Amino acid sequence: MSDLTSQLAELARGADEILPDGGLRTKLEKNRPLIVKAGFDPTAPDLHIGHTVLINKMRQFQSFGHEVVFLIGDFTGMIGDPSGKNATRPALSAEQIKANAATYEAQIFKILDKQRTRVEFNSTWMGKMDAAGLIKLASHHTVARMLERDDFNKRYTGGQPISIHEFLYPIVQGYDSVALRADVELGGTDQKFNLLVGRQLQQDFGQEPQVVLTTPLLEGLDGVQKMSKSLGNYIGITDPPDEMFGKLMSISDDLMWRYFEVLSFRTLGDIQGLKEQVESGLNPRDAKFELAIEIVARFHDAAAAKAAQAEFVARFQQGAMPEDMPELTLTTDDGQLGIAHLLKAAGLVSSTSEAFRMIKQGAVRIDGARIDDRALKLSAGDSGVFQVGRRRFARISLT
Amino acid sequence: MSDLTSQLAELARGADEILPDGGLRTKLEKNRPLIVKAGFDPTAPDLHIGHTVLINKMRQFQSFGHEVVFLIGDFTGMIGDPSGKNATRPALSAEQIKANAATYEAQIFKILDKQRTRVEFNSTWMGKMDAAGLIKLASHHTVARMLERDDFNKRYTGGQPISIHEFLYPIVQGYDSVALRADVELGGTDQKFNLLVGRQLQQDFGQEPQVVLTTPLLEGLDGVQKMSKSLGNYIGITDPPDEMFGKLMSISDDLMWRYFEVLSFRTLGDIQGLKEQVESGLNPRDAKFELAIEIVARFHDAAAAKAAQAEFVARFQQGAMPEDMPELTLTTDDGQLGIAHLLKAAGLVSSTSEAFRMIKQGAVRIDGARIDDRALKLSAGDSGVFQVGRRRFARISLT
Repeated sequence: MSDLTSQLAELARGADEILPDGGLRTKLEKNRPLIVKAGFDPTAPDLHIGHTVLINKMRQFQSFGHEVVFLIGDFTGMIGDPSGKNATRPALSAEQIKANAATYEAQIFKILDKQRTRVEFNSTWMGKMDAAGLIKLASHHTVARMLERDDFNKRYTGGQPISIHEFLYPIVQGYDSVALRADVELGGTDQKFNLLVGRQLQQDFGQEPQVVLTTPLLEGLDGVQKMSKSLGNYIGITDPPDEMFGKLMSISDDLMWRYFEVLSFRTLGDIQGLKEQVESGLNPRDAKFELAIEIVARFHDAAAAKAAQAEFVARFQQGAMPEDMPELTLTTDDGQLGIAHLLKAAGLVSSTSEAFRMIKQGAVRIDGARIDDRALKLSAGDSGVFQVGRRRFARISLT
Repeated sequence: MSDLTSQLAELARGADEILPDGGLRTKLEKNRPLIVKAGFDPTAPDLHIGHTVLINKMRQFQSFGHEVVFLIGDFTGMIGDPSGKNATRPALSAEQIKANAATYEAQIFKILDKQRTRVEFNSTWMGKMDAAGLIKLASHHTVARMLERDDFNKRYTGGQPISIHEFLYPIVQGYDSVALRADVELGGTDQKFNLLVGRQLQQDFGQEPQVVLTTPLLEGLDGVQKMSKSLGNYIGITDPPDEMFGKLMSISDDLMWRYFEVLSFRTLGDIQGLKEQVESGLNPRDAKFELAIEIVARFHDAAAAKAAQAEFVARFQQGAMPEDMPELTLTTDDGQLGIAHLLKAAGLVSSTSEAFRMIKQGAVRIDGARIDDRALKLSAGDSGVFQVGRRRFARISLT
C-alpha cells in the first residue's frame, strides 16, 4: 500500500462525500502541504462529541503534514441577523467574539496540534471589502442556483420569508476560500451547498477549485437519532470522566464500530485488527473499554480514564451497589408486570414513556445486565436489583 | 380654487400613478420645499422628447418652489454589470461618468432651472459604504418580494438567470432616498417597484416614506406605439428645428392634446381654453402650431421656432414644391395600383415595407394631404404630387 493510497483511505474514512471524484487524490499528488479550511460560527461554542467528527478530520490532515486553517466567521457574526428575525443570531461585539474564540480554542486544542493550527478570522479580509466589492462578488451567483439550496427552497416554496442578505452569507463563506486559497474545505453535510459555492468563486477568481469533504452528523447514544443536546443522547466534551465513560459503555456494539471509525485516532488497520479479535472471541465489552478509555483520556487525561474504568467495573460488573438502596415488593397483574410499568411503580422513572426512552438508551439494567426489550414481562416470584441510569436503584420482589 | 388644490392638479397632470393615495397632499401641506428626487442612469444620454415627460414633471415641482434633485446613479454605473452578461452595461470610468453627466446637464437645463437644480451622485454615500453596511441593507428586503418584480418574475419562471447582485441594485436605489431624505421620488412606470423599495427602506430607517409619482411612457408620432428610436416614431431633442416642427405637425389631433398635457408648460387652464376654441371652430392645425412653436422654442429658440413654422407653411400649406421634381407615368394592374407598390415603383421608397412604415409615421402625402390608409388603391387616370418624408417628391400619373 503506497503512502498516498493509505493517506487517501484515512482521509476518506467516515466522510460523507468528497467532491469532485478523484479530486482529493489530485490535490495530494501535488506533494506539498495543502491548505485545509474549516469554518466555524463565532457563537458561544459548547461542543458535544458529535461536533468533534469534523475536528478529528482536521487533525488527520494535520497529522499528514497539511496546513489546517480554523476559520472563525466573525465578519458575519458581527453583523448577526440584521433583519432581527432570528433571535439566535444576535450581533456579537468584538469582545464577545474574542471570548468565544478563546473558548473554542480551549476545546479544539484537545484534538488539534496548537502549534500547527492556523486560526483566522474572516473579518481580516471581509472587513476591508466595500459595498462595490460585495456587489461584484454577488454577481458570481444566480438567484435560481441559491434557491436550489434545500433550506432556502423549502422556505421559498413554503412562503416563509428569506431576507436577501441570507443569499450573501454563502457568497461571503465562498469568498473566504478565495482569500485563503484553500485546497480543501471541510464541513458538515448541511454545509455542502456553501462549500460548493467556494469552488465556483475560486474558479471565477482564477484559482484551482477546492476539494469539498463533508462529514456526517454523528448518531447519538441511541444509535438512531442524530446526536443532539435537545434529544439528550449526547456526550458533552466537558462531561465528567465517569459520565463520559458510562455513556460510551452504554452504546450498542454496532454503534461502537461507527464511533471507532469517526472518533478514534487509531488507524483503520488497528481497528480492523480489533474487529478480528472480537470475531475470534474477544468480549465486545473489552473493545468498548478501549474506545471509552481513548475518548475520556482525550478530553481529560489517561489517569482519569483509568479511574473511570475502575469505577465503571466496580459499579456495574462487580455488582457494587449503593448502601441505601430502597427495597420494594410490587404486585403483578394476573402474575405478570411489564418492565415499563414496573419501573414506574417503583418510582425509578416518572412515566412509562421515560422508561421506554431509558431502555432505548441502554440505561436500564436488572442485576447489572442491560435490558433491550421494552416489552419484557416480569413474573410473580421474580426479584433483583433494578437500575435506571447511574444513580437510581431499587431491590424489587414481585408477588 | 385654493393654491394647494391647483398645485396638486398640476403635479398629478399626466402622471401614471401617485402612491400612496392622498400622500402628495399630505406632503404639500407641510408648507416647506419638498425634496424631489429623480434618478438617472449614468450611461451616455441621447434623449428624445418622450424622456422629457419626467423632466417636465421635475420642472413643475421646481416651479412650485420645491427642491429638485437630479441624481446620477454613478455608483452602480462604475460597477457596471459585473457578471459580464449584459454588454449594454459596461463599467464606466469616473471620466466617462463625468462626461455623461455634462451631456445630461446640457440637455436637461433646457427644461430645468439650473440655479435651482441640485445635481447629486450616489457614489457620494454608496462609495463610503462597506460590505457589512450593504449586508445590513439587504436584510430589509426579501427574496420573494424581489421576485414579484415583473421582469425578475418573468426571468425566474422562464429559467433565465438572475445574478444576485441584480437584487442589490433596487436596494441601493432605495437607499438613495434614505440618504437624500426624499419626500417625493419621480420615475417612469417601469421604475414603480424600485421606487416602492425606497419607501420601505425610509420607513425602516425611521423616515417618513417618500411619495412615489410615476410618469407614463409617451406615445410616439404614430399615437400607438411607445416613442422609441428603434421604431423611428420619435422626436430627438437635438433634432433640427424644421424637422422637429414638421414631426409635431404630423401628429393626430388626439395625440396633440396628449402632448399638450405632458409636454407643454402651459397651465391646465390655458389648455382647456385652447380646447374650447377648437370646439368653437378654431382650426386644430392652429392649436398644433402653438404646441410645435412652444416645443421647438424650448429646445432651440423662439426665432428658430418662427422660422420653422414659416418653412412649414411655405412647404405644405402653400404648395411649394421643389423645382426639380421628377415626373413619371406608371401603369396600373387591371386599372388599380396599391399605394405601397406605387411608391416603390416611383423610387420614392426602397421597399413596400418602407412604404408601409412611412405611411404609419404619417410621412406620405398626396398633393399635401396625409395618407393614413396603407391599403389605399389608386386608379388609372389618377395623378398628383406624391411625397415621402420632407425631401422625396414625384409628380405621377397612372394609366
